[in-house]
Amino acid sequence: MGYDRAETTRRIFDAAVTEFAAAGIAGARIDRIATAARSNKALIYSYFGSKEQLFAAVLESRLTGLSEAVTVDPHRVAEYIGDLFDFMTANTEVLRLVQHETCHYLPGTEPHRADREAHYDEKVEAVRSAQHAGNVDPALDARFVVLSLIGLVSWFVAAPQITRMVIGAEIDDAIRARYREHLVLMARRMVQPD
Amino acid sequence: MGYDRAETTRRIFDAAVTEFAAAGIAGARIDRIATAARSNKALIYSYFGSKEQLFAAVLESRLTGLSEAVTVDPHRVAEYIGDLFDFMTANTEVLRLVQHETCHYLPGTEPHRADREAHYDEKVEAVRSAQHAGNVDPALDARFVVLSLIGLVSWFVAAPQITRMVIGAEIDDAIRARYREHLVLMARRMVQPD
Repeated sequence: MGYDRAETTRRIFDAAVTEFAAAGIAGARIDRIATAARSNKALIYSYFGSKEQLFAAVLESRLTGLSEAVTVDPHRVAEYIGDLFDFMTANTEVLRLVQHETCHYLPGTEPHRADREAHYDEKVEAVRSAQHAGNVDPALDARFVVLSLIGLVSWFVAAPQITRMVIGAEIDDAIRARYREHLVLMARRMVQPD
Repeated sequence: MGYDRAETTRRIFDAAVTEFAAAGIAGARIDRIATAARSNKALIYSYFGSKEQLFAAVLESRLTGLSEAVTVDPHRVAEYIGDLFDFMTANTEVLRLVQHETCHYLPGTEPHRADREAHYDEKVEAVRSAQHAGNVDPALDARFVVLSLIGLVSWFVAAPQITRMVIGAEIDDAIRARYREHLVLMARRMVQPD
């Protein structure tokens, strides 16, 4: 990919994330994405094929970014939760894209499934290493550990209205910092060997 | 409410849950709800005012049903997680409605907020009782405990595609049963006093 195409793609992706996060897949408008990206509809269709394929490319790009930015270190599995919390609260649109995916695709038809499974498999392998190293309870199912840790963090961002109702207040930086600490403690207790 | 109106409302709510869960708030069609409920559009508007108000009434009704069906017993807080898991996996449309709410409403404008906060406050009070009784670590923030326990369970249903990718298989009854057991164990470890 030449510099121009890479730079254009970056602008289109940024605009597409904003548009898809706000309007969903059905509601998103390619002409709005084109305007925001200082590009044009014809070029977007020629690069990506369709609105749905653009969504798939953008989601894959953002989830790959997440997977590479937030890794599981077998020596500090609980801290993965803190790192994931930081990423998700700073990049709330990633979970918003995942939610639109949930609403739009039939089970099993989600885009880039094999690549994304590979990212999760890396996390599962890191947990297994941690189990061999004695840092995570070896009696636990490593896939269940990954799924429950991700769930523990994701809900805070995925259903912000529920978060506000349970906490009974607007979520400010102080509450966010204290909840992050709570989650890391919870993760530590969940995985710790007897 | 007379019997006829109560019975009609029940049919409208059932049809509305299906329609809103599948199509979202913007995409839902009152005429489809009317047909499925063996009712008519004019009656639905006269009962509920608008499509958005119908959504709000249906969501409130289903969340109240959830809150009353799944309570926190201060003597068995971790089992709340198992009960909540059973309810959510048997009534997946409830979380789907919550997701559509997330996508549709601006922060702070969610319907029936005060009533729903009251439901969560009951859970928080039950956790505080459990802390006084020595069944839950008194050092934990009771609101954070409720939020993290709900999150732990909700994600499994709220993002089923992620669940399948992490588990690496279709989710059958055997996996569901084993994951339920895992979640209850995780909850027990999270809240247990030193």
